[in-house]
Amino acid sequence: MSLGGVVPPLVTPFRGDGAVDLSAFEANLELLTDTGLAGFLVLGSNGEAAALEESEKLALVSAARRALPGGFLLAGTGVESTRGTVALTRKAADLGADAALVVTPHFYRSRMSEEALRRHFTAVADASPIPIYLYSVPAFTGLAWPPGLAASLAGHPRIAGMKESSGDVGLLGRIVDSVPGDFEVASGNAPTFYPALCAGAAGGVLAVANCAPRPTVALHGAFRAGDHSRARHLQKALTPLAVAVTTTWGVAGLKAAMDLAGLRGGAVRAPLLPLPETAREEIHGLLDGAHAVLG
Amino acid sequence: MSLGGVVPPLVTPFRGDGAVDLSAFEANLELLTDTGLAGFLVLGSNGEAAALEESEKLALVSAARRALPGGFLLAGTGVESTRGTVALTRKAADLGADAALVVTPHFYRSRMSEEALRRHFTAVADASPIPIYLYSVPAFTGLAWPPGLAASLAGHPRIAGMKESSGDVGLLGRIVDSVPGDFEVASGNAPTFYPALCAGAAGGVLAVANCAPRPTVALHGAFRAGDHSRARHLQKALTPLAVAVTTTWGVAGLKAAMDLAGLRGGAVRAPLLPLPETAREEIHGLLDGAHAVLG
Amino acid sequence: MSLGGVVPPLVTPFRGDGAVDLSAFEANLELLTDTGLAGFLVLGSNGEAAALEESEKLALVSAARRALPGGFLLAGTGVESTRGTVALTRKAADLGADAALVVTPHFYRSRMSEEALRRHFTAVADASPIPIYLYSVPAFTGLAWPPGLAASLAGHPRIAGMKESSGDVGLLGRIVDSVPGDFEVASGNAPTFYPALCAGAAGGVLAVANCAPRPTVALHGAFRAGDHSRARHLQKALTPLAVAVTTTWGVAGLKAAMDLAGLRGGAVRAPLLPLPETAREEIHGLLDGAHAVLG
Amino acid sequence: MSLGGVVPPLVTPFRGDGAVDLSAFEANLELLTDTGLAGFLVLGSNGEAAALEESEKLALVSAARRALPGGFLLAGTGVESTRGTVALTRKAADLGADAALVVTPHFYRSRMSEEALRRHFTAVADASPIPIYLYSVPAFTGLAWPPGLAASLAGHPRIAGMKESSGDVGLLGRIVDSVPGDFEVASGNAPTFYPALCAGAAGGVLAVANCAPRPTVALHGAFRAGDHSRARHLQKALTPLAVAVTTTWGVAGLKAAMDLAGLRGGAVRAPLLPLPETAREEIHGLLDGAHAVLG
Repeated sequence: MSLGGVVPPLVTPFRGDGAVDLSAFEANLELLTDTGLAGFLVLGSNGEAAALEESEKLALVSAARRALPGGFLLAGTGVESTRGTVALTRKAADLGADAALVVTPHFYRSRMSEEALRRHFTAVADASPIPIYLYSVPAFTGLAWPPGLAASLAGHPRIAGMKESSGDVGLLGRIVDSVPGDFEVASGNAPTFYPALCAGAAGGVLAVANCAPRPTVALHGAFRAGDHSRARHLQKALTPLAVAVTTTWGVAGLKAAMDLAGLRGGAVRAPLLPLPETAREEIHGLLDGAHAVLG
Repeated sequence: MSLGGVVPPLVTPFRGDGAVDLSAFEANLELLTDTGLAGFLVLGSNGEAAALEESEKLALVSAARRALPGGFLLAGTGVESTRGTVALTRKAADLGADAALVVTPHFYRSRMSEEALRRHFTAVADASPIPIYLYSVPAFTGLAWPPGLAASLAGHPRIAGMKESSGDVGLLGRIVDSVPGDFEVASGNAPTFYPALCAGAAGGVLAVANCAPRPTVALHGAFRAGDHSRARHLQKALTPLAVAVTTTWGVAGLKAAMDLAGLRGGAVRAPLLPLPETAREEIHGLLDGAHAVLG
Repeated sequence: MSLGGVVPPLVTPFRGDGAVDLSAFEANLELLTDTGLAGFLVLGSNGEAAALEESEKLALVSAARRALPGGFLLAGTGVESTRGTVALTRKAADLGADAALVVTPHFYRSRMSEEALRRHFTAVADASPIPIYLYSVPAFTGLAWPPGLAASLAGHPRIAGMKESSGDVGLLGRIVDSVPGDFEVASGNAPTFYPALCAGAAGGVLAVANCAPRPTVALHGAFRAGDHSRARHLQKALTPLAVAVTTTWGVAGLKAAMDLAGLRGGAVRAPLLPLPETAREEIHGLLDGAHAVLG
Repeated sequence: MSLGGVVPPLVTPFRGDGAVDLSAFEANLELLTDTGLAGFLVLGSNGEAAALEESEKLALVSAARRALPGGFLLAGTGVESTRGTVALTRKAADLGADAALVVTPHFYRSRMSEEALRRHFTAVADASPIPIYLYSVPAFTGLAWPPGLAASLAGHPRIAGMKESSGDVGLLGRIVDSVPGDFEVASGNAPTFYPALCAGAAGGVLAVANCAPRPTVALHGAFRAGDHSRARHLQKALTPLAVAVTTTWGVAGLKAAMDLAGLRGGAVRAPLLPLPETAREEIHGLLDGAHAVLG
């Protein structure tokens, strides 16, 4: 069980009344099984975790665990306080999560020095019954990852790796070069997935894997097989879709892509805005493009 | 009841075991009464609201209401989702808050367009039993305030004003110039309090008012009295302390200044780091400097 | 002779063939005389100095000196190297400039530490036959001004003051509070001119003074006379025009405003783009608004 | 003649009196010949072009041409105005430059829209007797490259390619994917050279190639030979040196590394600061590390 493959950050479907739609969530898990994914992340940024109540978070972990009795289940448990992160990590573990993904706290970002982050991650790992993965996502947190921090934490017995979502392949490479071989660095940026693998990433936790799991898994497989030409070809086909469902249209775009791909995306929770209708058609074309290459 | 004066964003004291210390919180309220403050904000950024559980938030609103039977009580109720913000605003109103301060959602900051924010604030105001104040604090949210947004929301019967904490006096002035006279714009940046008043701010919600309420109130009073020379003199005396307890040392510095001023600040909640011991002495000197001018 | 008033950063008109149009430049100077301006800046950012050859720069200084036999003539002489800045400052002095405005070097911005800037300004002042003014304009240089730098340079006998163009009134105020009373700090940001005066600015070097000298001078005069109400009223009338001819439309907008005001603005030098025709009408309205307040 | 290999951006040595030291410059060229480099860039950012007078620039182009009768000579000719860039490009061509590297104008960065840049590059290419390469280096210009701009310019018969120095491998890949195969994209960021090659870069214009040409050329060769394992190994050995002579210590560090490697770096031109003595030793160790891998 590890991040050495492709993991989708699962979206959270909502019902018409705005509540979490667990049956749609479970339907997605069923549809995504047997596509070669290495595991599943619940409560990530693309899962709109920032907009969920704690009770909703726990229900999603439980549902995922039930749906994936043997799969690798990662749960996003990072909140702003160390205390709250410890509590949520323990609850997720109790509900069957195999590992926790812990985002950098960031509201008080000017105070989140390397030392503050080191103490935070160490305290969470000390108290956690399950392995944790560090998580840096500057697009959401506004916080740059200190290049030396992963190396100083990699020795902790319950810190298993890191998700690096900046898209800065140079930074990812420097992190990989600074840690022991069993510390897994996963890319969280699909448009640079192939170069990140070249730079030493073990795998990827990638939004686009929700709507295009097969091409994403194929890219990883091609790289593992040493077929750089095919890996780069798959990257080129995947990039426009990956950009559309993250940078350009965000979670609303990702959910629309899932709807178009036969999964259940649905609406986003406000204040996120619904997708403009014109974007749906564009995304449809990009979905086709990403899959054509599998042909 | 309004923001037309000086309001401290109350800090949240913690006990040795990390829990909220309501008795220390109440003691602060008692000590701050009769200093000329126009009201009190509970659950602001300086109140470490981002690191509090909802139950802790509600206990603080209740405690503040009990301690201030007749005073103007403002509660920070903004969270990432519109749904959650509505729910918390209603609970705060039920517990006696007079108004709610609603920060811009920001985790999905690239999606927080002017339209997304407009819908969010409108939905919250529509559902709120009490007036709301808009709140922009880019140092924490990483989000710039769209200059025209306040004007487009000012007509809502339950949107009473705004706290503008960027320190950009030009922006604050443009907002003031764009809204009706009864829409109150408060500065959230003490080092520019006097220039902000010149630019049309009605008052200030200022961290430094926790540890130096009298000089802050005196500055506002001097401005109101048309004594610009004294107002600028008070600003000059207050600025170094205000910078120290925000930009330089953050909430840990503010709490230390309160301890030094005879109030109860105490420890911050991790991952915020404790104040370096050397900073305490520096802050002591700045506190003296800020009060010396009162003669 | 000082920055204690309003100084326009003169634009550089170009002929149809792209060469500098000295006669248009001189015509502007003649039209701007007797409007109450405290002096004139040639070769500033709004003068497109970055796009001028050295021979063109020297011709502009000469022309300005001839046109203003007794006026205060400030010349922008800062280039990227200390050596080049010294050479150009000496040439400008030889041609009759009264003082030099020296912008922070910035191409190697990550290397422009406080120490590097201190050595640069000191070396230029040591070698200069005329007083120099420090100049910080982050919108163009991408470089933040170190708050303590002005104070450490203010003692130099040929460093007379500073132009602070960030629009950060708090920073301007902290600089004013840190230097001796005879070190002049001028604002370079018209939308915050009145608050900057409140914070201690001696005057302003303001693009908008090219096209609306009288309202700008009137604002400064009202402040000096202690008429805060009128100063704020003039600021409110001036701000929309000031924003249009800087942030919104840049030098092309400023030159169009001059054309509309009966001066000679004309075209900008590429790669700056010509003004969209629709913007001209908008600027016309803002010019009227800025002057209406003079009654 | 192309950028399909490793090209050093040559440094500009200075004499004790601060003038350009052409004999040291020529000595470097002689020492760098026969190391497998694909060409040479004179007047790049690392050549301190921003701090050179035009006469110095022309002398360097002439000297380089004389020293490299048959080699690929690229000259940096971009200045802030289109007019000045055209003039300098023509002069460089007259003196024998094979191609020109044209940096994005940037002083008026908020005005440098995609359209402004398109017109600028087109005008320069129209007027240039030699092929031009586009050049984006946000660390110095503060300007992000519009992703679609290269594709819209690639059809021009005298626009041959681009140097992309942001270090953003995703952006580089998207540019490569958007242009015809004969439009060469070179990386300008050594710490991401191997991933950039994977993403489709043809070669690199890399500061570190001045002081460690052989390992840099070896990395490119390994990639071309399909030996990804060796390429990544060489990257890992080169990265710490590459970071030290750019991000950490800048041109002063690069010149010190050249001195240590038996070339002639020497002093930087003020306001760049001299290298701290302690950094020299650190760089020595990194130079050894970069070469050790060549065995």
